[in-house]
Amino acid sequence: MIKMKTPEHILTTLKEIVGRKGWTNDEDKIENHITEWRGMWRGYCDIVISPVNTEEVSSVIKVCNASGIPVTPQGGNTGLVGAAVPEGGVLISLNRLNRIRDIDIHNNTITVDAGCVLNEIQIAAENVERFFPLSLGAEGSCQIGGNLSTNAGGIRVLRYGNARDLVLGLEVVLPDGRIWNGLRALRKDNTGYDLKHLFIGAEGTLGVITAAVLKLFPCQKDCKTALIAMDSPKEALKLMKIIETEANDDLSSYEILNRESMELVLSQTSELIYPFNNLHNWYALVELTSPTRIEQELESILSNAFKDKLINDAVIANNKSQAINFWKIREAIPIYQSKLGASIKHDISVPVSKVPEFLHLAIQLVREKVPEIKVIAFGHLGDGNIHFNLSQPPTKEVDAFLNERPSLNHLVYEIAAKLGGSFSAEHGIGKLKRNEMHHYCSKTEIRVMQKLKENIDPKGTMNPNKIL
Amino acid sequence: MIKMKTPEHILTTLKEIVGRKGWTNDEDKIENHITEWRGMWRGYCDIVISPVNTEEVSSVIKVCNASGIPVTPQGGNTGLVGAAVPEGGVLISLNRLNRIRDIDIHNNTITVDAGCVLNEIQIAAENVERFFPLSLGAEGSCQIGGNLSTNAGGIRVLRYGNARDLVLGLEVVLPDGRIWNGLRALRKDNTGYDLKHLFIGAEGTLGVITAAVLKLFPCQKDCKTALIAMDSPKEALKLMKIIETEANDDLSSYEILNRESMELVLSQTSELIYPFNNLHNWYALVELTSPTRIEQELESILSNAFKDKLINDAVIANNKSQAINFWKIREAIPIYQSKLGASIKHDISVPVSKVPEFLHLAIQLVREKVPEIKVIAFGHLGDGNIHFNLSQPPTKEVDAFLNERPSLNHLVYEIAAKLGGSFSAEHGIGKLKRNEMHHYCSKTEIRVMQKLKENIDPKGTMNPNKIL
Repeated sequence: MIKMKTPEHILTTLKEIVGRKGWTNDEDKIENHITEWRGMWRGYCDIVISPVNTEEVSSVIKVCNASGIPVTPQGGNTGLVGAAVPEGGVLISLNRLNRIRDIDIHNNTITVDAGCVLNEIQIAAENVERFFPLSLGAEGSCQIGGNLSTNAGGIRVLRYGNARDLVLGLEVVLPDGRIWNGLRALRKDNTGYDLKHLFIGAEGTLGVITAAVLKLFPCQKDCKTALIAMDSPKEALKLMKIIETEANDDLSSYEILNRESMELVLSQTSELIYPFNNLHNWYALVELTSPTRIEQELESILSNAFKDKLINDAVIANNKSQAINFWKIREAIPIYQSKLGASIKHDISVPVSKVPEFLHLAIQLVREKVPEIKVIAFGHLGDGNIHFNLSQPPTKEVDAFLNERPSLNHLVYEIAAKLGGSFSAEHGIGKLKRNEMHHYCSKTEIRVMQKLKENIDPKGTMNPNKIL
Repeated sequence: MIKMKTPEHILTTLKEIVGRKGWTNDEDKIENHITEWRGMWRGYCDIVISPVNTEEVSSVIKVCNASGIPVTPQGGNTGLVGAAVPEGGVLISLNRLNRIRDIDIHNNTITVDAGCVLNEIQIAAENVERFFPLSLGAEGSCQIGGNLSTNAGGIRVLRYGNARDLVLGLEVVLPDGRIWNGLRALRKDNTGYDLKHLFIGAEGTLGVITAAVLKLFPCQKDCKTALIAMDSPKEALKLMKIIETEANDDLSSYEILNRESMELVLSQTSELIYPFNNLHNWYALVELTSPTRIEQELESILSNAFKDKLINDAVIANNKSQAINFWKIREAIPIYQSKLGASIKHDISVPVSKVPEFLHLAIQLVREKVPEIKVIAFGHLGDGNIHFNLSQPPTKEVDAFLNERPSLNHLVYEIAAKLGGSFSAEHGIGKLKRNEMHHYCSKTEIRVMQKLKENIDPKGTMNPNKIL
C-alpha cells in the first residue's frame, strides 16, 4: 500500500483552523486513534484533528476535500468492524465536540453534539426525568456520533428501535465541507427526501455527523427482570410470543444465551450469582417495563409456562441488585470469551420466527466441521439478532482453528442468508465485511449504493475503503 | 405547456406487456386517474397502465425510460398535494398489484403488494390476531404504496410512528426499470446505506414502490377514549405531559380541536352526540391502550386535573360506541369544512412544546388580517402537527377571500418556521408546496436533494415536476 503524505502546507492550514489544543501528531497520542481497541487493525494518519465546533469541522473538511486528502471521522473508537480505522490523511476526532446543546422536556427531545458520550446523554435525560433508551456495552465511552454513524443496536431495540429510530434531526458536514443543518425537533416533517437516514449508518463515508436531535421518553417504572431456563430456542420463542400477547408493548428486552455462554461466565467469576440448582441448555433474560401490574402478570405467565413444560425453571428478580446480577451475566459473555482462546464471531440476524431454525442448523453444522468447537451463542431473540461466536476447541491449535475462519464464516452466513437474514445485524460493515457486502447484496443494491457514494462524495475523500 | 404525445409504437409495446386487462385509454376511465379527488388539479396522460406484478411494472418502466416518456405512479389517488397528478406520458396505476404476499405471525410482519388498500391490511392483521397501526381518514381507499410514498401520518403516530417507521423492507422498481429487492423482514440489518428510507416519502420521484414488509404489533386491548374540555392548548399540553408520565407509552393518540371545529361538526349532523352541557374553547381527544388498569388511572388523572382547574370537563367513553362517537366528531371536521365555503388549509408541525405558542400567534394574526375569518384548528397535539384550516367569513366574497391565500399561507408558514417547524407535516410536497420547499429549505438541502434525483433518475422520467 502506498502511503501518500499530507503536504506540509495543508497540515499548517489545518493546525491554524483548530488552534494549538485542536491537533496532535505525537506518535503516542496518535496510536490510540489508529489502533482498533481489540488490536484487530492498525491504520495510519498524518495528524489527529479535534475540532470544538461544527464550523471547525467544516473548515477542516473543506481544506482536505479541495486537495483530495482522505478524512476519517472517529468517535469513541469502540466499533467492531474497523469503520473508524484511518487509511492515511486526516483523522477527525469528535472528542471535543461534546456539548449538550438543548433539552426540551415538553417536546421530549435532547440536542447533542456528536462527541457526547452515550452515557452522558442517558444521565442528562435522567436529570430531567426523561429516558434515553439506547444502551449497549460500550456506553461509557462510545459517542453518539459513532452510535448514529453505525446505527447502533443494543439491548432495548425490541421496544425502542435501533439508534436510527431515536433520531429526529441531524447536522452533517458534507464531504465538500458544506454544513447541512437538518436539526429539526419535529415528529412529523414531510418535506422532500429524508436525508437523515442516508447519513445514519453510513459509517462516516458520506459526511461527518456533528449533532443530532434525539427522542426522549418518559422514565421507565416498575421494571421487572427474569432469568428463565429452557431446553431450546424454540421454547424461548414460544414464551416470548405469550409474553408479547399478554404484556403488549411492555416487553422491553428478550435476550437468550446458551449453556456454554453461562458456563463460560460462571467459570470466570465468582461475583455473579447463578440462581438455579442445575445448568440448563438455554436461558432467556426478560425485561418488562410498565407502570402497572406486571409483576403478577409475569408470575402467572411463567407459572403457566412451567405447568405446560415450556420452561424448566425461572427466577424473577426481587430487587434491583438481583436484576443487575442477571444483566451482568449476559454482559459478561463477550468480555470473557477471550479466556477460551481464539474466537471467530458472527453478528447475524434472521426473522424472529427463524431464530430456532438458525441456531439448530448453525450449531449442528459448525460442530460437524470442527468437533468440540465451543459455541457461545447469545443475543437479542426479540430482534432476531444472534451473536454466534465460536471459540477454539481445547484440542485444536490456534492457527489451525483460525484457518477455518473463511469456511466457518461462509457456513454461518449461508444459513442466515437462506433464512432471509443478514450477515451484519448491528455492527455494520467497516473494513471487516466488505467482501460479504459484495457477495450477499444484489448487484443492483451495490450499484445504487456506489452511485450514492459517487454522488455525495465525488472525490472519495470521506472515510475511504469502508462499506463498499 | 406543450403536451408531448407518447409515440404509437411505444403505446403498442406497453399494451403488449400488460395484456388487454392491463391498460385503458378510454377518456372516461382515464378521467378518474388524472383528476385530483377534490378537483383541485386535473392532469393529463396518454394511457393508464395497470400491471399485475412487479415484473410488468419493471418492463413498462424500462420501455418508458429508454424513450424518455414520463411515468406517474398512482395508488388510491387520495393524496392532498397533487403528487399523483400526471403531467403527460404514462400513468401506472397500482390497483391490480394487490396481493398480500405473506404473513409471519411469529416475526410480526406482513408482506404486501403496493396496491393493497390500507384497510385490507388492517383486516388481514386482525384476522391473525395482530395489529397494523397506520390509520387515517382515507384508509378505505388509499393504498399502502401511496401511504409509503408520502410517508403518511394519521392518528397513531404518537405511539407507533409515521408510515416510515412501520416498514422493515421494500421492493422498488428504479427509474430505469431495474428491480431493487430490499424485501427484508429483519429488525436489525446494518449492511450499507439504508435505501428504503430514500424511497419512502419520495412521492414516486425516485422509483415505484411495488411491495413492502410491514411491522405488526400485538392487538390493542382495553382501549380507553376520553373527550376533555379545556380553555386553551396550553392546558391541553400540560395534561398530555401528566398522562404521558403516568401512563408511559400507553398513550396512543392525543388530538385537539377548537370550539369552531366542534361547532362546525355539531351544526352539520345530529347523529353525533355532544357529551357536555356547554361549548368550550378547546377539546382534547385522548386514547390510551394498555393491557392493564388504565381506566382507574385515567379517571384519577382527570379528576385531579379538574380539581387543579387544568380542565373544565371530561367524559371517558363507557363503551366502544361512545368511543367511536368521539372519534367521529374528530374525523368529521375536514369532511364538513366545505360547508363553511371556501377554505385555505395548512398542515404544519412545530415541536410539541411550541404548539400553544403557534396556535396563539397564528389565530391572532389571521384574525387581524381577515376579520371574522373562521379558524378550524385541529390535529395531533401529540405529534406537534396541527391542521390549521381557515374558512371564509360570511361577510366576505369567495374570490376576495381566496385572494388572501398567498399572504395567509406566508403568515402561517412564517410562524411555524420561526418556531422551528415545518410547512408540511404529513401531507407532503407534490405540486402544491414546491415554492415553499425552495423558500423554507436551505440551498444546501435543496441541492443535495436535486443531486439525489439527478443521480437516481438521470433522465428525469419519474413523476416529473413534483417535490423539487
